[in-house]
Amino acid sequence: MLNYRKDLNEMPSYDGVERDYRIKVNANESTLSLPPLVEERVLNRLANISFNRYPNEEYDLLVEQIAKNFSVSKSQILLGGGSSEIIEKVFHAFGGNGRKIIYPQPSFSMYKIYARAAEAQAFPFDLDEKFDLDVDSYIKKIREVNADLAVICNPNNPTGNALTVAQIEEIVKNVDCALLLDEAYVEFYGHSAFSLVKKYPNLIVARTFSKAYGMAAARVGYMIAQEDVTRMINKTFMPYHMNTLSLAAADIVYQMRDEFVPRIQMTVAERQRIFEQLKNLRELEVFPSQTNFILIRYEKAAQLQEYLDNINIGVRYFSAGAPSLKNCLRISMGTRIENDEVLSVIKNFVQGK
Amino acid sequence: MLNYRKDLNEMPSYDGVERDYRIKVNANESTLSLPPLVEERVLNRLANISFNRYPNEEYDLLVEQIAKNFSVSKSQILLGGGSSEIIEKVFHAFGGNGRKIIYPQPSFSMYKIYARAAEAQAFPFDLDEKFDLDVDSYIKKIREVNADLAVICNPNNPTGNALTVAQIEEIVKNVDCALLLDEAYVEFYGHSAFSLVKKYPNLIVARTFSKAYGMAAARVGYMIAQEDVTRMINKTFMPYHMNTLSLAAADIVYQMRDEFVPRIQMTVAERQRIFEQLKNLRELEVFPSQTNFILIRYEKAAQLQEYLDNINIGVRYFSAGAPSLKNCLRISMGTRIENDEVLSVIKNFVQGK
Repeated sequence: MLNYRKDLNEMPSYDGVERDYRIKVNANESTLSLPPLVEERVLNRLANISFNRYPNEEYDLLVEQIAKNFSVSKSQILLGGGSSEIIEKVFHAFGGNGRKIIYPQPSFSMYKIYARAAEAQAFPFDLDEKFDLDVDSYIKKIREVNADLAVICNPNNPTGNALTVAQIEEIVKNVDCALLLDEAYVEFYGHSAFSLVKKYPNLIVARTFSKAYGMAAARVGYMIAQEDVTRMINKTFMPYHMNTLSLAAADIVYQMRDEFVPRIQMTVAERQRIFEQLKNLRELEVFPSQTNFILIRYEKAAQLQEYLDNINIGVRYFSAGAPSLKNCLRISMGTRIENDEVLSVIKNFVQGK
Repeated sequence: MLNYRKDLNEMPSYDGVERDYRIKVNANESTLSLPPLVEERVLNRLANISFNRYPNEEYDLLVEQIAKNFSVSKSQILLGGGSSEIIEKVFHAFGGNGRKIIYPQPSFSMYKIYARAAEAQAFPFDLDEKFDLDVDSYIKKIREVNADLAVICNPNNPTGNALTVAQIEEIVKNVDCALLLDEAYVEFYGHSAFSLVKKYPNLIVARTFSKAYGMAAARVGYMIAQEDVTRMINKTFMPYHMNTLSLAAADIVYQMRDEFVPRIQMTVAERQRIFEQLKNLRELEVFPSQTNFILIRYEKAAQLQEYLDNINIGVRYFSAGAPSLKNCLRISMGTRIENDEVLSVIKNFVQGK
């Protein structure tokens, strides 16, 4: 055995090809690919790339657009490979021996892994039985454990619920440590707390092109923070970590982001419609959502998931390792037709038809 | 000040947009973009991507091709964002508190940074005055410092010279630690040591699409090692670290890699031609190269670089931080016409015309 890094052997690996479901509502992806007009311009742009050259001004061009949109300086924006890499690097920047990272539970399942990869001590903080975050208790706990980094996912994945901006401000102003606000789903909620960055030097907001902007394939995300913070986090990124193809594609998508407004509205409308329909099924507990997915709890969730799987519909089932999500399924919003089919199957299943 | 990771503040940052030279021979890029037929097929493939879906089978498809070409199993291949990310992750996997990484000097300047990012102790090992690696001394030093990871860049960047496969075998069989063989330029040399992977469980070979395959923009590289090793290194990669666009583009390029043979041959022929021409200039010391670039030493290298820069020709000058590269310039091979112009400018400059 070679001398691998301490504890590396205990890290999990991520492999394997996911099944290509007929109705794929298991990964909170946008159900539609890019709007045709956007896709056409993306492909035109890709046709003009110098494949042979290292990435150069493409990073800056996208940063410039994002900074302008948020009325912040370019030095307040960093790009990463999806908000995943932003989170990974922020965890790394506040991690290391003896460092403490606190995050809500249940929430994005990767926080635990990123904390381990950062060699930090992880403090999962339990949400209540309605999956709400008790703000005062969270503040108290952050101080009590003397955390170096605290995390909020807002709206929260996989529960769907959200804190208000005022609640987020309550947290950020009452803690001294860095606070990472993961806003992967915020476009479906409508209330970003990014403007708090101006006021609070410990706030870091992570955003992504993967959900509302239908660009999960490209792996582009970004963070907004004060310049002192981005300067430090930037040190964790190696040169050329972003590729030209993804940057150029994201640049076009961001230029044309108004084209995505109707489909975000459609997703929100579908979420509301499906939520009401699911609520009519007494066999289910349905959790209110501000995202592009809905979480349900059902006694026979495992069997329902298996049944859906057999008819080529993919939903997300939370099994081992997440006791508070026992018997929960997470269903991303598809098109109206897809949602109707999923709903109808669920209805028949739970009513034993 | 927030509680950043220990020593993060001392890490450098990588920023800034590089100048777009008329003749850009400063970064060892392929001077030509993709062959037209390849580019057409890459763009067709990109037009069929599901932008909205997370990367899925694209990683596996490329791994399968590479594994087949090298007659190894799929589990012996890992992909990364250029060989840069492969090196970063291998350093991380053998890094951490108290771990020791040894690498030749002068060599790829990032080894030092990757070692620091991995929180390992760095041991640069000096090449001799001809930039040759003394194999016996290197083996001795690796054992003496009790290194956890040793590195060879073959052919070596920025010096251009190469070890034979027999010399590499001599090293790998005489050390117990992991040996990372960085073969970024091996296509211009023709003698890969990848087949030693079958015999030596401590050998890791890193390769890239960025140089001979003209894909620096896409950031795709790979490593070949025994399954035990790839299983461990894989743990350092987070899910979805590779994007679909780059994977799909690299998949086409790899399918069509025969199309790149003529231009690799052209680059090698140009290197030989330019080497002979430069050798005729008594004012220069010219180092033999097995790569797509040539290193020269010249008393007034700084002035020459400035002069070239002023007429919009970019070459790489090694200044502070690399004493053994004092007064050295590295010139990547361009097209025949570009090379003739660079040569003519250098000739006139050194002869004071």
